Amino acid sequence: LRQPLPENLHARYRAIRNQTLRLVGPLQKEDFVVQPIVDVSPPKWHLAHTTWFFETFVLVSNATDYNLFDKSFPYLFNSYYISAGDRWSRADRGNLTRPSVDEVFAYREYVDEAMEKLILEADLTSEQLHVIEVGFHHEQQHQELLLYDIKYIFGHNPTFPVYKGDSENEDKLPVIAIKWLPIKKGNYHIGHEGDFFCFDNELRRHEVHLEGFEIANRLVTNGEYLDFMKSGGYSDHSFWLSDGWDWIQSNKLECPLYWFEEDGEWKMFGLSGLKKLNINEPVAHVSYYEADAYAKWAGLRLPTEFEWEMAAMEYGTESLSSGNFVDDHLMRPKAGESLDFFGNLWEWTASAYLPYPYYQAPPGALGEYNGKFMINQMVLRGGSYATPQSHIRPTYRNFFQPNMRWLFNGIRLARFI
Amino acid sequence: LRQPLPENLHARYRAIRNQTLRLVGPLQKEDFVVQPIVDVSPPKWHLAHTTWFFETFVLVSNATDYNLFDKSFPYLFNSYYISAGDRWSRADRGNLTRPSVDEVFAYREYVDEAMEKLILEADLTSEQLHVIEVGFHHEQQHQELLLYDIKYIFGHNPTFPVYKGDSENEDKLPVIAIKWLPIKKGNYHIGHEGDFFCFDNELRRHEVHLEGFEIANRLVTNGEYLDFMKSGGYSDHSFWLSDGWDWIQSNKLECPLYWFEEDGEWKMFGLSGLKKLNINEPVAHVSYYEADAYAKWAGLRLPTEFEWEMAAMEYGTESLSSGNFVDDHLMRPKAGESLDFFGNLWEWTASAYLPYPYYQAPPGALGEYNGKFMINQMVLRGGSYATPQSHIRPTYRNFFQPNMRWLFNGIRLARFI
Amino acid sequence: LRQPLPENLHARYRAIRNQTLRLVGPLQKEDFVVQPIVDVSPPKWHLAHTTWFFETFVLVSNATDYNLFDKSFPYLFNSYYISAGDRWSRADRGNLTRPSVDEVFAYREYVDEAMEKLILEADLTSEQLHVIEVGFHHEQQHQELLLYDIKYIFGHNPTFPVYKGDSENEDKLPVIAIKWLPIKKGNYHIGHEGDFFCFDNELRRHEVHLEGFEIANRLVTNGEYLDFMKSGGYSDHSFWLSDGWDWIQSNKLECPLYWFEEDGEWKMFGLSGLKKLNINEPVAHVSYYEADAYAKWAGLRLPTEFEWEMAAMEYGTESLSSGNFVDDHLMRPKAGESLDFFGNLWEWTASAYLPYPYYQAPPGALGEYNGKFMINQMVLRGGSYATPQSHIRPTYRNFFQPNMRWLFNGIRLARFI
Amino acid sequence: LRQPLPENLHARYRAIRNQTLRLVGPLQKEDFVVQPIVDVSPPKWHLAHTTWFFETFVLVSNATDYNLFDKSFPYLFNSYYISAGDRWSRADRGNLTRPSVDEVFAYREYVDEAMEKLILEADLTSEQLHVIEVGFHHEQQHQELLLYDIKYIFGHNPTFPVYKGDSENEDKLPVIAIKWLPIKKGNYHIGHEGDFFCFDNELRRHEVHLEGFEIANRLVTNGEYLDFMKSGGYSDHSFWLSDGWDWIQSNKLECPLYWFEEDGEWKMFGLSGLKKLNINEPVAHVSYYEADAYAKWAGLRLPTEFEWEMAAMEYGTESLSSGNFVDDHLMRPKAGESLDFFGNLWEWTASAYLPYPYYQAPPGALGEYNGKFMINQMVLRGGSYATPQSHIRPTYRNFFQPNMRWLFNGIRLARFI
Repeated sequence: LRQPLPENLHARYRAIRNQTLRLVGPLQKEDFVVQPIVDVSPPKWHLAHTTWFFETFVLVSNATDYNLFDKSFPYLFNSYYISAGDRWSRADRGNLTRPSVDEVFAYREYVDEAMEKLILEADLTSEQLHVIEVGFHHEQQHQELLLYDIKYIFGHNPTFPVYKGDSENEDKLPVIAIKWLPIKKGNYHIGHEGDFFCFDNELRRHEVHLEGFEIANRLVTNGEYLDFMKSGGYSDHSFWLSDGWDWIQSNKLECPLYWFEEDGEWKMFGLSGLKKLNINEPVAHVSYYEADAYAKWAGLRLPTEFEWEMAAMEYGTESLSSGNFVDDHLMRPKAGESLDFFGNLWEWTASAYLPYPYYQAPPGALGEYNGKFMINQMVLRGGSYATPQSHIRPTYRNFFQPNMRWLFNGIRLARFI
Repeated sequence: LRQPLPENLHARYRAIRNQTLRLVGPLQKEDFVVQPIVDVSPPKWHLAHTTWFFETFVLVSNATDYNLFDKSFPYLFNSYYISAGDRWSRADRGNLTRPSVDEVFAYREYVDEAMEKLILEADLTSEQLHVIEVGFHHEQQHQELLLYDIKYIFGHNPTFPVYKGDSENEDKLPVIAIKWLPIKKGNYHIGHEGDFFCFDNELRRHEVHLEGFEIANRLVTNGEYLDFMKSGGYSDHSFWLSDGWDWIQSNKLECPLYWFEEDGEWKMFGLSGLKKLNINEPVAHVSYYEADAYAKWAGLRLPTEFEWEMAAMEYGTESLSSGNFVDDHLMRPKAGESLDFFGNLWEWTASAYLPYPYYQAPPGALGEYNGKFMINQMVLRGGSYATPQSHIRPTYRNFFQPNMRWLFNGIRLARFI
Repeated sequence: LRQPLPENLHARYRAIRNQTLRLVGPLQKEDFVVQPIVDVSPPKWHLAHTTWFFETFVLVSNATDYNLFDKSFPYLFNSYYISAGDRWSRADRGNLTRPSVDEVFAYREYVDEAMEKLILEADLTSEQLHVIEVGFHHEQQHQELLLYDIKYIFGHNPTFPVYKGDSENEDKLPVIAIKWLPIKKGNYHIGHEGDFFCFDNELRRHEVHLEGFEIANRLVTNGEYLDFMKSGGYSDHSFWLSDGWDWIQSNKLECPLYWFEEDGEWKMFGLSGLKKLNINEPVAHVSYYEADAYAKWAGLRLPTEFEWEMAAMEYGTESLSSGNFVDDHLMRPKAGESLDFFGNLWEWTASAYLPYPYYQAPPGALGEYNGKFMINQMVLRGGSYATPQSHIRPTYRNFFQPNMRWLFNGIRLARFI
Repeated sequence: LRQPLPENLHARYRAIRNQTLRLVGPLQKEDFVVQPIVDVSPPKWHLAHTTWFFETFVLVSNATDYNLFDKSFPYLFNSYYISAGDRWSRADRGNLTRPSVDEVFAYREYVDEAMEKLILEADLTSEQLHVIEVGFHHEQQHQELLLYDIKYIFGHNPTFPVYKGDSENEDKLPVIAIKWLPIKKGNYHIGHEGDFFCFDNELRRHEVHLEGFEIANRLVTNGEYLDFMKSGGYSDHSFWLSDGWDWIQSNKLECPLYWFEEDGEWKMFGLSGLKKLNINEPVAHVSYYEADAYAKWAGLRLPTEFEWEMAAMEYGTESLSSGNFVDDHLMRPKAGESLDFFGNLWEWTASAYLPYPYYQAPPGALGEYNGKFMINQMVLRGGSYATPQSHIRPTYRNFFQPNMRWLFNGIRLARFI
């Protein structure tokens, strides 16, 4: 990792920490507290947990004169780091009305002060710099989760609160035609290289062999997905993985999350409230099972994460800067985009989340960050409209269980040549 | 029912409604929202539901010019009145961050204004007066539940928030000796009579035959219950009902709710926080299973609700005015009391909650108030320190499933002569 | 208890033990093994468990030279007697293919030989005689359960096996008109007295006061129950206890157990196979919830167990000998009966299963026989077509949870005068 | 597929069908019926289901004059082929005492007669031949499952029945030293080719790139696994995948399936009964989670399925004929083996079960055979002592969820060079 100037590190710290606060700006205090399903954490918890991360792995580890803000907080705000000590049960995060939102804000200020002092005044080792860098990316990941969770909380409230009013000019852009972008059969290199930050799961860069394939230039739209639904997609088992079929049966699912049919008309809940379904927008909030079933119905398939990475490098790098990221504060997927490999919506790949060759989890608590989740999950690539632009990379691997739908994800199709 | 003067009715309305607000005074906004278990409703919900009760059964039914405060509220705040229309799922009350606490307060004000106008200006029928009276008692029941739920929320928070600071002079009174109060074998009349309000489940007044028995002059204390625990009460099946034994095994229970052992010392959580166990205080927060097991261990038994009613009429009526009620704002059970049949702690009886002879549920939604719950529950009698004094009667029947422990209840023993 | 002659005791022992074997006569070996729900035990288990009862409580306790048939059997065939040692999990009884049916039969022979020797040769104490008597009644209870369980196993097999072919002349008798049998208001004595055997739960005989009431002379018929169903009984919450309503919703219940609708026609599974519903037969296999809902729909109610006992003593004693018992081997409820208080079908009462005054569970393992189940169950009275005639008494109290339906029970209605 | 001579096809049919009967030879009728967990099917069910497969996909599809043996059997014995019509619930297979074992045997004979006639007399199309071939392999797979299920049924019976007595000379062979077999970095071809049978999931043969690696010449032994246990392997989270850690916690697992500790000594249940743990035998009945944790504890890893296939082709082909297969009727893993890539125990690989490039599920019901299970499972390779020798191939892909342990599987380790 390259050594940053203290003032630059300090500026990044403040920017990232402030961005978290900006995201919870529209919330009322009540919104900070609840946990409607175990996957959704209370917004308050995200604010405290990201703070705990810096406190625990930077301040407590390094600053000899640091005093904990509150002795109960490590217990309350550790997520899943067994090495870092006992934790409050994840499923019960939504039962904790205290510490209050104000106390959590005070906690952030207290830790920020100590962190900023450390960054500006201490002579940080490269190990310390690395952990701070991880803390930045960690907080950015939670910024994204915050938006997932806020959307879930609001989207499951029958009054459908609005997080952010939308401008009038919703995308009326026509859907562009699908074009197939080819990648030739051959050996390719996959994974991170260079001296910029990456997570351990992007390593070790290695060679893979790919068959020749083509990938779509854009995501599947709501209108296209509606065609799948109308043609009986949810009632024809032949498109579905067995687990997925059982899952839609037992949960009585017939449409993506946040879709509602009222009097024969489809509506969709977004951060700007409940609105008429925009058929031009890319479809979001579908599980891997649904994405895979859609692809099979269309006679196509999802790309592997390796195919995706190669295609994104070849065709999509412009969207690394031009994509729809949280920085734009659009807060919804953008219709009419082409080659938006980065931003807009995460894209399910047909790859299970498994270690790359030579993968080694780091020692200590941070070794629990990624490696221990490498089972029963599928990889997503590319980032979403809730991802900070500075957070994403072509080699970035996101991962969720195949039945998860509250993330901001969509579908990109592929086929062999 | 005797016809009250409008101004007296108005004064009662305001007093009862204000009392609810007084009880939530110590809460922070975050405390109003959560539902840690399905039995515990968010405090905000109680505030809105009691308001919905007046709105639905008085204002909407009677006042032709009344406009709903919010069209979604009847759906959100109906509890279990199937006749009154669809309801939001009980288990999901704690997921609703909106309407906010402020909106719920505004809802209360809006309905209060309409109710007070109706009370003062309308020529109320006796049916209307009855429903308003039910509304008063309904709100008082929820005031008590509010305190159960607040205690549960605070008592399951590892920071153990304080609801109300306790005065220094905690009861140091010595425990009085048990005296056995006799009632002769014979026929007795049970149930409500007279033109004062009662719930339908207290009717019809009827004759029962009782064997001669004796009942204890006071409740079982924490110290006595600790003896039961120390002598292996939780590990000797012979004291336990089969369902109770299975229940303590599968929930790994070894003490009452809110008891915590730290370094060999027992502590107890109360509305004034986590404190050293007061062995002189009456034991609280035991299930029917535990109460029954304790009684068997002691070679005694719980009284039936009929025995209790007769004994309370004979020996306990003074506590109808002198008892430890919510009006005193002590907010904990009182030690050293004798003959406190009323107030302090509800008392489990050995009677299943079943209809009295000739019982008839009233027509309409209010018919769902009591009758449909007459199965799988046990009767408790006498009220608690969370009960308004004006709410309790000797014939009052409270009821809970035998595994419930978050209510404010204790144990009174009996034996045959 | 009166002292029987050894040869009479021996004759009874053989008769009762042989009757168990007679009941499993129609089974194939495969039928002996399975446990489709936790409440249904494998027939093989009943055969072994009743044998274990004699082995444990008579032979092991008394005969100093008795050797266990197999050291693993006490562990395998103890049901719920915690005092008698560890047990194989009840829910896993249906996983045990071994010991085989043949081994269980051999076990019965081995224990029978020892028991018969003891009965004929030993000088039995009155305590021993009592335990043997309990063993008789215990085996008779399991004979009845055997038939419940066989019916369940066969009735949940899509091939609907026949246990016993029915004669051609099925009851074509017209349904007799309901007559209301009155009992006057007053004090009555309830519970067992005399020197014949009874279970502990029938004691102590005591006085109760009853309001004047009337009870139906016959059970509700399938035709009458069908009227309830057709008039929307299962979809109108106002007839239902809250727990019952939730239970029929979550289990999607719309008719009694073993009823099947095929092409608009109702069929019913019985021990003689799947047949057209006989509308004249008394309705069976309804839960307490359904019985209670039916009664409310009819504007009536279920009798209490005290009312039932008094009415049965007054009007029904003839059926103690003439009733439809297992001895007749009819193996189905009989239509067209009047005053059949005993036999035919157990009758739900509106009484919770609770101890009588002065009830005391016996010491030791047999104290677990009845007392520990006195919670969350409702009392049934009168016996069924699966009950041995010599097993029933007017004071006999049967009990099941209110959602149980696989027992052989029906509905008798009552009303206050 | 090459066209076989009718008489050879007929001989294979008889041999495979007879082998199924041979495997159930030691069972008593009771053993055929039960289903202790949903994954374990009753032996009777396997016998009928494999017969249904031929009946449905060969006889009903092709033989115009074929009459079903029993109209209810297709409903009862279809497993998961949604395209083939409605099915009896999988979880309730163990509740069906009928059809009896004798009827199932008669069913087999009836179908065998029709099949043998068809094979000998009809002019089969290549499509028909293919389906028959699938039927052979299908029956062989169920032969293996039969043994898993019999072992489970016997191994969960506290009397530990013996399936097959073991000869005296249990393996006393010393464990051979681990040798590391190298494979060079490079591109390799994976998947089936040629005109012999393979399952669809082994296609399409394709190129992969592998890093250089080494693989162990033998499986991990019980003794080595015991070292892992003794050194705290089950209580140190750092070796475990997060899902695996949660799984061992909530199931309180501390050793492989079928291991029992008695008085400080480890025993192991096998098809020859409960015996002292043989530390030289390869460890079996570990989940993927345990296999992966063991590998991490050892500082090594599991091979991918591609690595495994290349290594097996390079080093293990001799065991294709010399391996420990069901044909040898040893009925337990063999100790002291080297290079036994085939037979003995299936080997967990680090590969998720996913489609190969260009994979296409066949049309119709047989398309449900493999493809729809390609999610949430891990690949195993190589076969076991319950696998018929004629069933296995180097490209054969077996697959199970990572928490499954009742299969006959072990652990082979790998490492990068």
